[in-house]
Amino acid sequence: MTTTFQAIVPTLERQAIELPSWAFGNSGTRFKVFGTPGTPRTPQEKIADAAKVHELTGLAPAVALHVPWDAVDDFAALGAHADGLGVRLGTINSNTFQDADYKFGSLTHVDAAVRRKAIDHHLRCIEIMHETGSTDLKIWLADGTNYPGQGSLRSRQDRLADSLAEIYAALGEHQRLVLEYKFFEPAFYHTDVPDWGTSFVQVSALGDRAFTCLDTGHHAPGTNIEFIVMQLLRLGKLGSFDFNSRFYADDDLIVGAADPFQLFRILHEVVAGGGLDEGSPVRFMLDQCHNVEEKIPAQIRSVLNVQEMTARALLVDRAALATAQQEHDVLGANDVLMDAFHTDVRPALAEWRAARGLPADPLRAYAESGHQRLLAEQRTGGAQAGWGA
Amino acid sequence: MTTTFQAIVPTLERQAIELPSWAFGNSGTRFKVFGTPGTPRTPQEKIADAAKVHELTGLAPAVALHVPWDAVDDFAALGAHADGLGVRLGTINSNTFQDADYKFGSLTHVDAAVRRKAIDHHLRCIEIMHETGSTDLKIWLADGTNYPGQGSLRSRQDRLADSLAEIYAALGEHQRLVLEYKFFEPAFYHTDVPDWGTSFVQVSALGDRAFTCLDTGHHAPGTNIEFIVMQLLRLGKLGSFDFNSRFYADDDLIVGAADPFQLFRILHEVVAGGGLDEGSPVRFMLDQCHNVEEKIPAQIRSVLNVQEMTARALLVDRAALATAQQEHDVLGANDVLMDAFHTDVRPALAEWRAARGLPADPLRAYAESGHQRLLAEQRTGGAQAGWGA
Amino acid sequence: MTTTFQAIVPTLERQAIELPSWAFGNSGTRFKVFGTPGTPRTPQEKIADAAKVHELTGLAPAVALHVPWDAVDDFAALGAHADGLGVRLGTINSNTFQDADYKFGSLTHVDAAVRRKAIDHHLRCIEIMHETGSTDLKIWLADGTNYPGQGSLRSRQDRLADSLAEIYAALGEHQRLVLEYKFFEPAFYHTDVPDWGTSFVQVSALGDRAFTCLDTGHHAPGTNIEFIVMQLLRLGKLGSFDFNSRFYADDDLIVGAADPFQLFRILHEVVAGGGLDEGSPVRFMLDQCHNVEEKIPAQIRSVLNVQEMTARALLVDRAALATAQQEHDVLGANDVLMDAFHTDVRPALAEWRAARGLPADPLRAYAESGHQRLLAEQRTGGAQAGWGA
Amino acid sequence: MTTTFQAIVPTLERQAIELPSWAFGNSGTRFKVFGTPGTPRTPQEKIADAAKVHELTGLAPAVALHVPWDAVDDFAALGAHADGLGVRLGTINSNTFQDADYKFGSLTHVDAAVRRKAIDHHLRCIEIMHETGSTDLKIWLADGTNYPGQGSLRSRQDRLADSLAEIYAALGEHQRLVLEYKFFEPAFYHTDVPDWGTSFVQVSALGDRAFTCLDTGHHAPGTNIEFIVMQLLRLGKLGSFDFNSRFYADDDLIVGAADPFQLFRILHEVVAGGGLDEGSPVRFMLDQCHNVEEKIPAQIRSVLNVQEMTARALLVDRAALATAQQEHDVLGANDVLMDAFHTDVRPALAEWRAARGLPADPLRAYAESGHQRLLAEQRTGGAQAGWGA
Repeated sequence: MTTTFQAIVPTLERQAIELPSWAFGNSGTRFKVFGTPGTPRTPQEKIADAAKVHELTGLAPAVALHVPWDAVDDFAALGAHADGLGVRLGTINSNTFQDADYKFGSLTHVDAAVRRKAIDHHLRCIEIMHETGSTDLKIWLADGTNYPGQGSLRSRQDRLADSLAEIYAALGEHQRLVLEYKFFEPAFYHTDVPDWGTSFVQVSALGDRAFTCLDTGHHAPGTNIEFIVMQLLRLGKLGSFDFNSRFYADDDLIVGAADPFQLFRILHEVVAGGGLDEGSPVRFMLDQCHNVEEKIPAQIRSVLNVQEMTARALLVDRAALATAQQEHDVLGANDVLMDAFHTDVRPALAEWRAARGLPADPLRAYAESGHQRLLAEQRTGGAQAGWGA
Repeated sequence: MTTTFQAIVPTLERQAIELPSWAFGNSGTRFKVFGTPGTPRTPQEKIADAAKVHELTGLAPAVALHVPWDAVDDFAALGAHADGLGVRLGTINSNTFQDADYKFGSLTHVDAAVRRKAIDHHLRCIEIMHETGSTDLKIWLADGTNYPGQGSLRSRQDRLADSLAEIYAALGEHQRLVLEYKFFEPAFYHTDVPDWGTSFVQVSALGDRAFTCLDTGHHAPGTNIEFIVMQLLRLGKLGSFDFNSRFYADDDLIVGAADPFQLFRILHEVVAGGGLDEGSPVRFMLDQCHNVEEKIPAQIRSVLNVQEMTARALLVDRAALATAQQEHDVLGANDVLMDAFHTDVRPALAEWRAARGLPADPLRAYAESGHQRLLAEQRTGGAQAGWGA
Repeated sequence: MTTTFQAIVPTLERQAIELPSWAFGNSGTRFKVFGTPGTPRTPQEKIADAAKVHELTGLAPAVALHVPWDAVDDFAALGAHADGLGVRLGTINSNTFQDADYKFGSLTHVDAAVRRKAIDHHLRCIEIMHETGSTDLKIWLADGTNYPGQGSLRSRQDRLADSLAEIYAALGEHQRLVLEYKFFEPAFYHTDVPDWGTSFVQVSALGDRAFTCLDTGHHAPGTNIEFIVMQLLRLGKLGSFDFNSRFYADDDLIVGAADPFQLFRILHEVVAGGGLDEGSPVRFMLDQCHNVEEKIPAQIRSVLNVQEMTARALLVDRAALATAQQEHDVLGANDVLMDAFHTDVRPALAEWRAARGLPADPLRAYAESGHQRLLAEQRTGGAQAGWGA
Repeated sequence: MTTTFQAIVPTLERQAIELPSWAFGNSGTRFKVFGTPGTPRTPQEKIADAAKVHELTGLAPAVALHVPWDAVDDFAALGAHADGLGVRLGTINSNTFQDADYKFGSLTHVDAAVRRKAIDHHLRCIEIMHETGSTDLKIWLADGTNYPGQGSLRSRQDRLADSLAEIYAALGEHQRLVLEYKFFEPAFYHTDVPDWGTSFVQVSALGDRAFTCLDTGHHAPGTNIEFIVMQLLRLGKLGSFDFNSRFYADDDLIVGAADPFQLFRILHEVVAGGGLDEGSPVRFMLDQCHNVEEKIPAQIRSVLNVQEMTARALLVDRAALATAQQEHDVLGANDVLMDAFHTDVRPALAEWRAARGLPADPLRAYAESGHQRLLAEQRTGGAQAGWGA
């Protein structure tokens, strides 16, 4: 390998991974949501937990909010609270799947009144973005049907286009809309934005500030996700990542936990496509559920995983790779990738952290700090935050 | 086709499909559980809804209970209540996935105390079976892990065997244990009983009254389920079906809704393997979630779907099929199956119902009865039943 | 159901399904290609077999050719031969996967000389189209890689765009280019046109006469294919279907054999999206492999399956469906679809055939004609046609 | 990590990976088999190539044969030839999928004469084993059907049991039978041994010297393969591995190339279950296709991949893992695994090789030896070996 760790440090130092406020609340499956001592009860506490992750890793300067899960009376004050903790408020995630009105859809609903309500919710989210300084409005829709015939696939798609157009028109000039796609769940027959192609045609119809959000857990089994990363970068429409990992469906496990090599390949395409260049439109976020593991350490582990794989991807000897590709040296080209993947970047990253005044081993630092026990003692009473399902 | 509808009537008349009490309560996804007017609040009301399905179809003489969802002080009285409504209590389903103690497993848990609690729960279920006259104890375990390394796959399997042995030993001599398997969910890395092979080796180790339960939604994508039906019948270990259907994962949609031809093929193997013969050990149950559709009509539709496909499977010209198979007439053999599958058995079944004093069109009869509106008016106040997650 | 069979006859009479010449030759797997007596040895004989299917069904007036599998010195003469048999030559399929030069790609190859060769092959195909009067050039590419790193995903995509642009520019004004996508095989890491999104962005960049070809066997497990049908029709880019069916991968089984309900849903969306309207740009083709079954009867069965499912799709009571959808009557809407699906259209279609002077039962007519035995006797000597792999 | 590399060396030194003779011949897909200069033409040349891999790695002392692909007049002489090259003949693989008689099955065929022929082929394989000193007869069957109804699933299963019983009875007392299972291909509706459960019940019925062979590419999407490894080890029925890797179906790529972490997890369970202990019944083999890459280097890469992952699996701190599991420390337990996985064992293995007189970098040594060019020059004329499909 000719690339040195030193050479990749500037890029690593630019890397920022946004944390989802909801990852610090309880989550689970339809069978059970288990609580744990110390779980936050308020948006403020969730932000404090996110700030702790940033404090220990230097990797997570922003916190994404979910509205209304994180609804507060004064978002400017919430922003100041974040500021005081060393982080800022990031992406605003709309939520049109938990109100009874949305049982049969939101932006795609057959009834104009429900669409109106869902659009208005997004307009409110845009207002919040002005209050928080957030630049991204992220839309993930639960819209879909469970049975063939239940809805008109075509009419729903057309209504979706109309609804998105109205929301897009309301964006401020420095604001963006990112539209997430998902293969299935909670709808079990069809989903209105099931694949990158659908997200792409919808956001392309909107304009330059509309992008696709790629959640790494939202694809059919066997899908080559890095190909999609490449294609969306090529088309200039990759707006953001929701990182997590999966063995089966949308498991929302810790990023890199299920298939670390896939994460590496994804980041390799990000690097190749300029996604880590200065001025890149690509934002990195986590979207995970910590059903059985401790949440703060899980988020620490997650951002470290992304950083470690990014380092490996940056270490790929691209000149050697290009030569091997040119010469049809299949094994040689693959070896270039594998060499970077198998490189143990952990010691260098530990040094890098230490040099920046961060703990060399953030997980150990957290464990030894007694912070988790403190939270468990302090956060008694009240209702633990969760998805409110 | 040489087989006539008349010839298959005796078998059809033997068919009984057990309904799950919980299908009448609210269900949903981790994102949202939507309620509907008229949803039962008590086990008694759930049984009343199940009885309504039987009243209109003649197909569903038994109701399966889930403990503790259907826990009552006096199960004998609950049985009498069912009796009065024209149905009986059927399979007892244990539940070891909603207590906080079961976060890391139940019958497989590393802590002996938790295993004890889970075993005792099953012993209590067996007592209830004695009170209700139920013959089957059905065990579906949520046990599993979310991350590689979280648990010892082997130790958990061994503890499972020990726990099951203790439960099995407590069964009355006319009682059976059926062990369900499931590919994934709620565990996302490994599940302790993930496939028919594991259920088979575990129940084989127990004895003659232990069987496998096959839930049609619990397999990997692409799995040939009818092959497993054939194999378990061949091995004498197919105890029961949990019918439902799926497009993606364990969607728990109405049986026959996603892939009616698959349901036909499954029932074809049931017939071929003697599963509908008198004295067959195979029990038919539904296990479904009606997240967006009306529950009572959904159960009516479900039992009708099973009956219609059973009729088609019984109509297969088995002599012609055997001849075509013997002669390697691939298209001819397939045509024999498809001919039965494409036969519209609905008119004959409507006549059969009318002749037995049942409504020719049970769904229309239910719709026109105004029963649903009545339930919505009567069942106000109290908490609607659900999974209690 | 309010729609009558009579009402749908005009649409059924417009239906034409193109047959693939190669379906009449031998095919198989990497493990073995089995031959059968009577298999054609020449393009002329393949066309004769296709004409036999049309003679008995009235459904298959055109034959698609694969070049160079069907290469002849005089394509005009081949067209006259087809004419004399009552059929015409249809889509020209290019083949850039069997020459040793294409081991590492064709239109995407890193070497300009190989791309030149592949482009020239397509230009030759366009010449052939002028000679045969074919309107469609169908491009399916085997291009892809087997190992991460083997190729630059991005460069290959860019080269693909360049190569397609040159081919598109050479089309005559009444000619079209249709670009097929495929999930995987023969490439096992990445495929250069893996999904509808990629085909869509590539053909959109070309112009109005470039379309996507949807092969029903070329998707990830669980993909909702009818959604893609809807979306491509909505975008005006659905050029053609390659019909077949699958249980696992690209099995290329008889259309409708693996999941008849899926075929129904696909055709339901075709009807809803105007794909069967006069002047529709959508062409219907088969692309199948008859590895173990007789080929001519298999093609007869296939076109009958498409016709039967089309009839069922046309019988859907669209007014009732729209009403149920509007009212969120999930079960009612689904019932409208299922009612049409379960309707046995075979007797009415048999009558329709008889009224047109066609055999009521084409498969029986073929079997009783002794034609297959005749072919087996006549076609001795020479090499049976196959894929030439 | 408390385990040192030194501590695991004795186990590593016991590791032997059998190479498949056919991996050195040409292979491909149904679309094309590409040849390459230097490909062996005879069993002798294939063995020579395998011996080269062993010479450079010290990991591959045995070569598996496929009959009749590797049929010779004098197997004893072939064994001597191997001996002279420093390797021995290993597993004998039967082949009942390329004779025209096997179009509709072999050991499961409806015709007794074809079953007889298939059984006799296995008896001949057992004779060969006596001549070569091979201990394992490996049976992989292509038997299955392409269409529902084509065959009787049950009768085929029963005939399979009968055929296997006759073969098993003919084994010498130091010989074993291993039965491979496969999800699909070449059959596309059902396969007669589709899953581990079926292989297990079949070999259990035979006796103590019958085992299951687990091919890592033969499972449904998403299957947790290491669970099956654990279960078969627990049941004492894991006879051997066929290693390879896959992104989609049975891609037969280089082991560890598609999902290195999965390979690690599999080997972790092998170690945990005693599969690497002295006297373990588990044999390690490769079964791969090198469609586009150079074959000898591909096999070198493969055995190195297995060795590297075995080393990582052996480095797992099992005491720490057990403690974390006991304490429900989900993240901690996972970290123990990941720490071993991310450890770069390549330098230590290079040293180990050097200490044994092997090249530190076998791939470079091969490339620099000029051996491949020599083979290309020498092996001209004759027919390159392949699958003979």
